[in-house]
Amino acid sequence: MPRVRFHPNQREVEVAVGESLLRAAILAGVHVNATCGGSGVCGKCRVVVERGEVDSEPSAKLTPEQIAGGSVMACTSTVSGDVEVRVPVESQLGDTRSVLAREHRTITHGSALTPKDLGELFGEFELDPATSRLYVELPAPTLEDNIGDLERLRRELARVHGVGDFTLDHSCLAHLAASLRAGEWKVTATLARTGEGECPRLIGVDPGDRSARHYGLAVDIGTTSVVAELVDLGNRASLGRESEYNAQISCGDDVISRIVYSLKKDGLARLQGLVAGTINTLIDRLVEKSGVERDDIVYVVAAGNTTMIHLFYGIDPRHIREEPYIPTMNFIPTVEAATVGLRIARGARVFCVPGRASYVGGDITAGLLAAGVFRSDKLTLFIDIGTNGEMALGNAEWLLSCACSAGPAFEGGSVKHGMRAVLGAIEIVRIDPDTLEPMIVTIGQQRPKGICGSGLIDAVAELFLTGIINEKGKFNLDLGQPRIRVNAGIAEYVLVRAAESAIGADIAITEADLDNLIRTKGAIYAGIATLLEQMQMTAEAIEQVFIAGGFGRYLELDQAITIGLLPEFSEDKVKYVGNGSLLGAHLVLLSRAARESAAGIARSMTYLELSTNPGFMDNYVSALFLPHTDQHAFPSVLQRVARATRGGERAAH
Amino acid sequence: MPRVRFHPNQREVEVAVGESLLRAAILAGVHVNATCGGSGVCGKCRVVVERGEVDSEPSAKLTPEQIAGGSVMACTSTVSGDVEVRVPVESQLGDTRSVLAREHRTITHGSALTPKDLGELFGEFELDPATSRLYVELPAPTLEDNIGDLERLRRELARVHGVGDFTLDHSCLAHLAASLRAGEWKVTATLARTGEGECPRLIGVDPGDRSARHYGLAVDIGTTSVVAELVDLGNRASLGRESEYNAQISCGDDVISRIVYSLKKDGLARLQGLVAGTINTLIDRLVEKSGVERDDIVYVVAAGNTTMIHLFYGIDPRHIREEPYIPTMNFIPTVEAATVGLRIARGARVFCVPGRASYVGGDITAGLLAAGVFRSDKLTLFIDIGTNGEMALGNAEWLLSCACSAGPAFEGGSVKHGMRAVLGAIEIVRIDPDTLEPMIVTIGQQRPKGICGSGLIDAVAELFLTGIINEKGKFNLDLGQPRIRVNAGIAEYVLVRAAESAIGADIAITEADLDNLIRTKGAIYAGIATLLEQMQMTAEAIEQVFIAGGFGRYLELDQAITIGLLPEFSEDKVKYVGNGSLLGAHLVLLSRAARESAAGIARSMTYLELSTNPGFMDNYVSALFLPHTDQHAFPSVLQRVARATRGGERAAH
Repeated sequence: MPRVRFHPNQREVEVAVGESLLRAAILAGVHVNATCGGSGVCGKCRVVVERGEVDSEPSAKLTPEQIAGGSVMACTSTVSGDVEVRVPVESQLGDTRSVLAREHRTITHGSALTPKDLGELFGEFELDPATSRLYVELPAPTLEDNIGDLERLRRELARVHGVGDFTLDHSCLAHLAASLRAGEWKVTATLARTGEGECPRLIGVDPGDRSARHYGLAVDIGTTSVVAELVDLGNRASLGRESEYNAQISCGDDVISRIVYSLKKDGLARLQGLVAGTINTLIDRLVEKSGVERDDIVYVVAAGNTTMIHLFYGIDPRHIREEPYIPTMNFIPTVEAATVGLRIARGARVFCVPGRASYVGGDITAGLLAAGVFRSDKLTLFIDIGTNGEMALGNAEWLLSCACSAGPAFEGGSVKHGMRAVLGAIEIVRIDPDTLEPMIVTIGQQRPKGICGSGLIDAVAELFLTGIINEKGKFNLDLGQPRIRVNAGIAEYVLVRAAESAIGADIAITEADLDNLIRTKGAIYAGIATLLEQMQMTAEAIEQVFIAGGFGRYLELDQAITIGLLPEFSEDKVKYVGNGSLLGAHLVLLSRAARESAAGIARSMTYLELSTNPGFMDNYVSALFLPHTDQHAFPSVLQRVARATRGGERAAH
Repeated sequence: MPRVRFHPNQREVEVAVGESLLRAAILAGVHVNATCGGSGVCGKCRVVVERGEVDSEPSAKLTPEQIAGGSVMACTSTVSGDVEVRVPVESQLGDTRSVLAREHRTITHGSALTPKDLGELFGEFELDPATSRLYVELPAPTLEDNIGDLERLRRELARVHGVGDFTLDHSCLAHLAASLRAGEWKVTATLARTGEGECPRLIGVDPGDRSARHYGLAVDIGTTSVVAELVDLGNRASLGRESEYNAQISCGDDVISRIVYSLKKDGLARLQGLVAGTINTLIDRLVEKSGVERDDIVYVVAAGNTTMIHLFYGIDPRHIREEPYIPTMNFIPTVEAATVGLRIARGARVFCVPGRASYVGGDITAGLLAAGVFRSDKLTLFIDIGTNGEMALGNAEWLLSCACSAGPAFEGGSVKHGMRAVLGAIEIVRIDPDTLEPMIVTIGQQRPKGICGSGLIDAVAELFLTGIINEKGKFNLDLGQPRIRVNAGIAEYVLVRAAESAIGADIAITEADLDNLIRTKGAIYAGIATLLEQMQMTAEAIEQVFIAGGFGRYLELDQAITIGLLPEFSEDKVKYVGNGSLLGAHLVLLSRAARESAAGIARSMTYLELSTNPGFMDNYVSALFLPHTDQHAFPSVLQRVARATRGGERAAH
């Protein structure tokens, strides 16, 4: 990997080919002016290439002299080999102390699952999907060999493929004669093993040899987004992944508002149709891009939270929100794809990864499966931070799970300029402790549209470390930085000014946002603390931490610890699962053994109801501070605060 | 049973209480004038009660003197105790020779299955229906015991009833939460075992205790009629039987014309809807009369010919009529009642008795099951004479079956005044060998509307025995009996004159009818002969004969032999199964072991295709005579002809 060395700070960092100098600076802990998110608009991130070369886009912000002198914009210059760059004084927002102050502020991500991790995980399970497609050539009937079409198919499937007794769909029966004759007695039979203890079921008979066209779909049905992955069930190959907003969003942002909507007249049917429509849109795209025929997609494995799965199946979810919070099912029967409105093979089946409770659904089981907890002796904490914070503590032997109504703050909900982690979302925020000026990077380095979860965590951490806000999330309005202001009666910090934003307005983080964010992070921390208390354990005992969710991918561990979202886990313990729900569904799609493992996880998991747990309430109240009422639990944060104060004249309250 | 003695003939007969004197005369072989079918219209059947009493309706046909002298109308007088009656000369149509000539012409029916036979048959199979209804009281969920509704139901069904793993319908899932709560956690679970090798399937969850309301429906789906029997699956009790014309009749009389209709646009869907509508009509009546709730009817077993079952399932039957005559299926998968449009319990299942071939369907398997062939060592001939003549030869070890396109003559089709065996149909015909005047009895002793199958066989036999027709079915027009006439160029015999018929026109049997009837009986006889030849056996080797079909119930064995429909079976070998299709379906409904036996019958049966069998064509041509080209195969018929000739001056040709 290319090395980038920054002068005058003498910080060096390895980055991937194609990474921008702006991100390299972030990784190196070097502060560079950047208030447009890296979109090339503000022109403040000029650096001078002193050795090596970078690929730069032309910029009207640079004078011919600057260009001649080796200047480039850090945001629009990408690295392809070793390079040394100098950050000019005006890009450093003050003197070099700001860099020195950040000596330990390189990004601490933990590590994502590596291809090797995934290889091992998938290697655990032999390729053994629930469906099989068997090509068979039948002798044409004669007056002497005059058994019925179905009996002939049974006979040859038994003779050629060793298939024993099977049941079949009515629709299969209705098309059997035509398929056999259209294929001139050469057909592909699709069989599904839909449940334990059942003989296989014939779900399709198609003319000709389609045995090599055996496709499945793994789907993560999130409250906000739906992601689908098309998989070749013959060889495990992934043929594409697509994602889209869950169209149910028009009926409410979170599971509770969806449940409320489902109680309206035709509400349930509408919600069912909307999510089916979203999945069909993804199928359309996958089919279009891969060239796979939709009629060859014969199996779907979905994972989602319990409410999403109820709505996907068209099942009244009302009892999920009423104490004692009982869903219709946690173990979800296989249904026909047509029953839930998916446009794939006639007779295709849908299975959903089992969940444990109304608020610990199949997405969590799938994530635990993807995290490999089912085979680990290590004490593991699994956290999925989305609209709800769901988590589980345990190992292959036992699992204790809970869910806390974290609220949608980290998904961009209930935050003034919050948004999902999509293009244009601010994902990295740094605030210079001297000038209290921000440095921001957006996803795709586009002009900023709002702030996503990781950006919010960064922002809170930075505001706290620089003393702009106090432990209670209240602004210090006496710092003389015009970005800190009161707008319509509410204090806020302006991250992006209207001129540089994509929305034509300032993007700010308000005291109300901070209040929500602190409550959200407090709930998650309290959940973890309560699980640990329940097992009479401390955070130190946790040997590995898996963080799942689209959010987790961008999470900066140090910053999450700084705001007290997570206990002080060391970087080497933390792994990011990414979309664990999709990954788990993918595993279950490929292997019935994985399905068994998922069922085992769901069965063995104990669920702790937090909403009525007095210990949780205590933990929650204690966590409504930055980082926590008990600051001794956060020694590294205390160190960081002290260092910021020493180095950058931390704003006194 | 009361005894009826007839003077002057000194013939005596035992009849059931309530039997009419007219039928008693028939049974006794005594000829009485009766040209109105026994409806009391013609006034010709006057007899004088000499001892004992009868219950008579008043008749305007009798003078006060006659009434004072003990005269009654034989047709409207019923027997309740021993009685002696005298037939006056004018009622005898000549002298007493007509009676003497009929010395051996008592009705030879063979015997119907007795209640004892049925008891033994049903006793073979323990009560073990495919469905069970289990009442279970669930502990209400709490925050501590917070598993899903489905998991709770599984847990309690396992704990209380030992139910293991089960699958379930989507509709069941969709209503589960509401049912559990409506029943305050006391519910009845309905489970079905839908196929071998499968775990049970939950098909219903109803509030409260409905375990004692466990009903099933046995259905015979005939081409012409549909019969349904409602059965209590808890105790085998029959709760009613209803029958109705198959509404598909509007689309054609026989299976071939139905198949042709099915090829029209929307034809298949229409035929499916029509038969479902017919069954729903029967269900409506059964529910109305029995007080059973339709939602408690959870299982249906149907039997029918292969085409009827294809149409009932909405499956294209076109290949059934195209060589090599291959149906989609002979072993018919279980489907949801809703799929085939039956209005019973949501989730109720439909199963059909398996068949063997396109023209030996589940109705035959059911009949063989009802006849007990599966447990008999005796060489058995089973015949079902309907629109087609289907038959099987064999025993518990082996079965050879065939079907001959007998045509609908015996069901009233292709015969000028033919009709089904319903009220007003002529079912018994006697012709006085001296006067060549008829004596007829209708079903229900109503004014004649037409002639049903048994009446036609009687008529042909009588016309032949009296010499009115010859061996080729051609009329002798020189006998001077005005009932024998040429009408619109076709010779015919008038059975009922317009004044006494219910249709305001003469009811006659024509030479064209005779032609059809001889071809029909010839085809059936040829089928039997071909089966025997195939096994290198003769008719004498047959140890028992079962005759099934609504038709069989009224069949007079002697007459059937006289026309050469059947070989000369002795009366003691012949048993009438009645509606064997319904009886077999009823057995399968009650017991999964019976279902297995039916499957065993269908599997073990060999099917002989007659349409391309040269031996069959030879046998058929030989059988186009009365009784047969080879008259030596019919010694008793030769005797009867000789006796009729001696006694009644048989009309010479």
